[in-house]
Amino acid sequence: MPKVKFIPENIEIEANKGDNLLEIARKADVFIDAPCSGNGTCGKCKVKVEKGKVNTQKSRHINEKEENLGYVLACETEVVEDVVIETLSHSSNMAGMKIETLSGPEDKKIFQRAVKQVTDNNMEFGTYVKKDYLQISNPTLDDNISDWDRIKRHMRNKLGLSKVFCRLPILRRLPHILRESDFNITITHIPRGENKTTIINIEKGDTTDRLFGVALDIGTTSVAACLVDLYEGKLLAKASSGNSQMKYGADIINRIVFSTKKNGLEKLKHAIIHETINPLLEKMFNEADVDRNEVISFVAAGNTTMCHLLLGIYPDYLRREPYIPTFVKAPFIKASELEINVNPETFLYIAPSVASYVGGDITSGVLSSGMWSKDENTLFIDLGTNGEIVFGNKEFFITCACSSGPAFEGGEISSGMRASSGAIDSVSIDENTLNLNIGTINDEKPKGICGSGIIDLIADMMKTGIVDRKGKIKKDVNTDRIRFDEHDIGEYVIAFKDEWDIEEDISITDIDIDNFIKAKGAIYSGISTLLNNLGMDTDMIDKVLIAGGIGSSISIEKAIEIGLFPDMDHDKFAYIGNTSLMGCYLTIMSEDARRKMEDVAEQMTYMELSADPSYMDEFVAACFLPHTNIERFPTVVNKVS
Amino acid sequence: MPKVKFIPENIEIEANKGDNLLEIARKADVFIDAPCSGNGTCGKCKVKVEKGKVNTQKSRHINEKEENLGYVLACETEVVEDVVIETLSHSSNMAGMKIETLSGPEDKKIFQRAVKQVTDNNMEFGTYVKKDYLQISNPTLDDNISDWDRIKRHMRNKLGLSKVFCRLPILRRLPHILRESDFNITITHIPRGENKTTIINIEKGDTTDRLFGVALDIGTTSVAACLVDLYEGKLLAKASSGNSQMKYGADIINRIVFSTKKNGLEKLKHAIIHETINPLLEKMFNEADVDRNEVISFVAAGNTTMCHLLLGIYPDYLRREPYIPTFVKAPFIKASELEINVNPETFLYIAPSVASYVGGDITSGVLSSGMWSKDENTLFIDLGTNGEIVFGNKEFFITCACSSGPAFEGGEISSGMRASSGAIDSVSIDENTLNLNIGTINDEKPKGICGSGIIDLIADMMKTGIVDRKGKIKKDVNTDRIRFDEHDIGEYVIAFKDEWDIEEDISITDIDIDNFIKAKGAIYSGISTLLNNLGMDTDMIDKVLIAGGIGSSISIEKAIEIGLFPDMDHDKFAYIGNTSLMGCYLTIMSEDARRKMEDVAEQMTYMELSADPSYMDEFVAACFLPHTNIERFPTVVNKVS
Repeated sequence: MPKVKFIPENIEIEANKGDNLLEIARKADVFIDAPCSGNGTCGKCKVKVEKGKVNTQKSRHINEKEENLGYVLACETEVVEDVVIETLSHSSNMAGMKIETLSGPEDKKIFQRAVKQVTDNNMEFGTYVKKDYLQISNPTLDDNISDWDRIKRHMRNKLGLSKVFCRLPILRRLPHILRESDFNITITHIPRGENKTTIINIEKGDTTDRLFGVALDIGTTSVAACLVDLYEGKLLAKASSGNSQMKYGADIINRIVFSTKKNGLEKLKHAIIHETINPLLEKMFNEADVDRNEVISFVAAGNTTMCHLLLGIYPDYLRREPYIPTFVKAPFIKASELEINVNPETFLYIAPSVASYVGGDITSGVLSSGMWSKDENTLFIDLGTNGEIVFGNKEFFITCACSSGPAFEGGEISSGMRASSGAIDSVSIDENTLNLNIGTINDEKPKGICGSGIIDLIADMMKTGIVDRKGKIKKDVNTDRIRFDEHDIGEYVIAFKDEWDIEEDISITDIDIDNFIKAKGAIYSGISTLLNNLGMDTDMIDKVLIAGGIGSSISIEKAIEIGLFPDMDHDKFAYIGNTSLMGCYLTIMSEDARRKMEDVAEQMTYMELSADPSYMDEFVAACFLPHTNIERFPTVVNKVS
Repeated sequence: MPKVKFIPENIEIEANKGDNLLEIARKADVFIDAPCSGNGTCGKCKVKVEKGKVNTQKSRHINEKEENLGYVLACETEVVEDVVIETLSHSSNMAGMKIETLSGPEDKKIFQRAVKQVTDNNMEFGTYVKKDYLQISNPTLDDNISDWDRIKRHMRNKLGLSKVFCRLPILRRLPHILRESDFNITITHIPRGENKTTIINIEKGDTTDRLFGVALDIGTTSVAACLVDLYEGKLLAKASSGNSQMKYGADIINRIVFSTKKNGLEKLKHAIIHETINPLLEKMFNEADVDRNEVISFVAAGNTTMCHLLLGIYPDYLRREPYIPTFVKAPFIKASELEINVNPETFLYIAPSVASYVGGDITSGVLSSGMWSKDENTLFIDLGTNGEIVFGNKEFFITCACSSGPAFEGGEISSGMRASSGAIDSVSIDENTLNLNIGTINDEKPKGICGSGIIDLIADMMKTGIVDRKGKIKKDVNTDRIRFDEHDIGEYVIAFKDEWDIEEDISITDIDIDNFIKAKGAIYSGISTLLNNLGMDTDMIDKVLIAGGIGSSISIEKAIEIGLFPDMDHDKFAYIGNTSLMGCYLTIMSEDARRKMEDVAEQMTYMELSADPSYMDEFVAACFLPHTNIERFPTVVNKVS
């Protein structure tokens, strides 16, 4: 059997002759980015054959020079003999299992704004979980009731709780903990009604001052989490990483397709729980010196597909007409059921979804936006993988999903990456000299370009005439940043490798720009179709809230210039960050907020865009810079040549 | 590393030089009986070294002839080179993983008597689980709510149930089952209150006529189970086998000691669930053509230690003063939590215990005995491993446990076995000729002797003067069945191997008789201490109910002759079989019975015999045939020489 060695990972695995190289890498747990899930279309799974021969297909993603150097697409390659494969560093830019700790003043402001939604609306902070320190009398021959009865008797006498329950894992720890603590223990419990409670944790001694919760936003591309002190609401740690399911497909559809393959669902569930969530938790627990067993509150939000995959529920009917989710509101689930590394008895609250393509992340986002308490007509736009739109005020909500794909998070863009350290998040091109200026997150060396950077870039390429209004790179522009391959595909280099001392050029191609224009067209046409349906126009929008992974550097001006957002007063726009995570944070901190979250989900009316006959025309018209009908963008008209 | 091969199992395993042979056998999953859990005291782990050399200790259990033939005690033997070990057939008599299907008219009568307790006492039959067939409308683009919401809407509209719950495993099966059945499904659910219910199973099509339950008695030595049709109460299958934990020790104390060793608790839990209960279930399900998922009711009873081990709860404090169980009433446990192979969502009801040494088997037995509804003073005696006694009537119950060990189930008796096929269950010795007659269960060739057989044997050995009143085999008796070893230990042969064409002689030794006398002495002294404490004597006993594994062939006359029971009118005695199993059966069939079971457990007052200063004197006096004070046995006086 041929041996396949991956470098720099230095992992070797045996394969059968004829096995697919991408499959082999997955089996060996070697990460190779494959947003299209191995269909040969995205070109992201490019690797270099360092030693040995393979059977491979020609691809437009591999140019002649690359071909001669041994570059192949892993998904189009069969192994026939011993080989050494170099996985390319840019592969890991997207999924980036690298965990980052997030912080900064911007972040703090976003938290404070979310908290204001609770305090402004007469909702109370306070978790449903309680801790009590019990100093229990020791057993004797004359007082020899069972350990469990002894605890119950104590709680009846001292706390007035006459009906006390627990589950098997607690009982199993009881004999040891009671005797190691000389019967002085702290119980964590969930009271129900006046005299009932259920114990979910027991600890030695008095630990009543320690009680923690985790909020989690599960994006298709990125996952973000924060660890919170439940008494003070203090943020103890915050971390994010790519969603490890990325290797099985960049977008929802590819993930669903993969889930229908043998063990596919199990692998996706494993990737999100064991390769993404648990490492994030461990990182935060280490940082804040918290034990997993002390974490007894957990709220997660994600789109409907992510929720299905997290719970191990077959998602294929989400993508098949009539697009039916198995659930929108998850049942009672304990952490142990999903092997999520918080206290095993912790109840996992999953933010309720609205429909197949409007998930709990949107419900959670709307909760934290506070639009449910306002008279103003608010447009809420989540620019994550796919875009979701909610329009409404305290009286009503209407919502729809736009198939924008992962472009706003850097997906399906050659040098794309999510908004993390080293991402180019702002770009400007001088109109006269065509000189380029870039800014990166944390001022690091550029690694790739994220959503806000791409918006800036395309806006300025348009204004300086580097691209035409279809987004095609022109040939007659006087800059050395432009080149064309043998298929006449244009490419604009944002960062030369020599210029920045990086491994390879960071650039954008005609194909990337086309992808991005489709994505922004999907959002814009979604907004206009939604408003049309309500018989309203953009004048009636009082406020636009931008949420999601696009990054806080987003320039509203440039986003309007490319036709992503309607041409409106810039002051009406606000970037409000990861609202999904904020909503989860509010939900662990306040039972009132959790109830409001349920209300919000029930109040939202879902509109199926694909069922609207005018949507396709709107979409096609929007796939232009800024729009086929430029009159819709009065402030942009003069900027376009 | 030395290789150890076990025959006739034909299992080979590698071991380290110096490893203990009994440990190696356990590791290889080869069953070698070891009631004393490897202390070298019981002599049951005798094996034959067929090939290779071992380091071993001399033992009184191995005579010279055996030593020359290569017999050793596995627990006293170290492996130093490749060996072939013959495990001896009699080893498996006790634990007998052989599963037997039980039936017969006797059995039926016992069932009917138990059922009468329910009907006589105005309790109702009827389980708390319901089945409903739902014909649900198919989803469309216009009616695209989630699968789970669709079921809930249907149940609200058609069944008036507005609050419907389920857990994750049900949700996971939903998308497939709904579509494979064209949305015609049967749900199994547990209603609570007027409009709430929890779905615990879903099946394709209409299966409302199939609903099954399992009752299980977990004895220290034997485990018995029955499978029941919950609609008709019909017994579909019944099976029993040895408790596979036997290999880790014959009695409760040895099991507890083993549980404190590395992985001991886990091994004991595995043995009872995966090696005993699940095979019994599979056997019954095959026989009755029932699928595990159709079994949604499960009630088990066992002594307090068995319950702790079943649940994986550390039992060591049960045997340490002040003898504290971790629980007497188990919490809510689902089958999936213990990996018991019924429907994973099935609630496992464990009969509540009273104290460390009076378990749920006794609670269940008292329930099925019906003594809780009677004016008569009833003495209930469970002769299983250890003996438990309950005395009372509808006004009160007092209970105690006697440390009689496993002798009544054949434990700690050289040729002892439980009351199953081939067991010698009745014996008579002619007073004049000293000729011996034996009867075996199912008239099979004798394999060993069970409790009722031992009672007969010792009674007749006493009456014919073969043993003295201390139970010592006399030297001057004219029978070729008696022999003495080099240590002067007497042995009486019940079945010669040539006589019956069996592998080896079945016999009883001085040591066996001594063990058995201690066991019967523990029961008798328990009864008298209990009555003394109440200021009562045997005249006040209206009824004696004998339960447990001793077997239905028990001769009341001979049991009185050896001094096991008080000398009373034989008509007052009744053998009522495995009352623990019967109580479990009633509990799955009737919610009223389950509530009564809880009441019974709460009403029982536990008396700690070891705390009573008179008990030890009573016990010593009772370790005689029939008793030191023979006046207590007026009908026996004339029979004793």
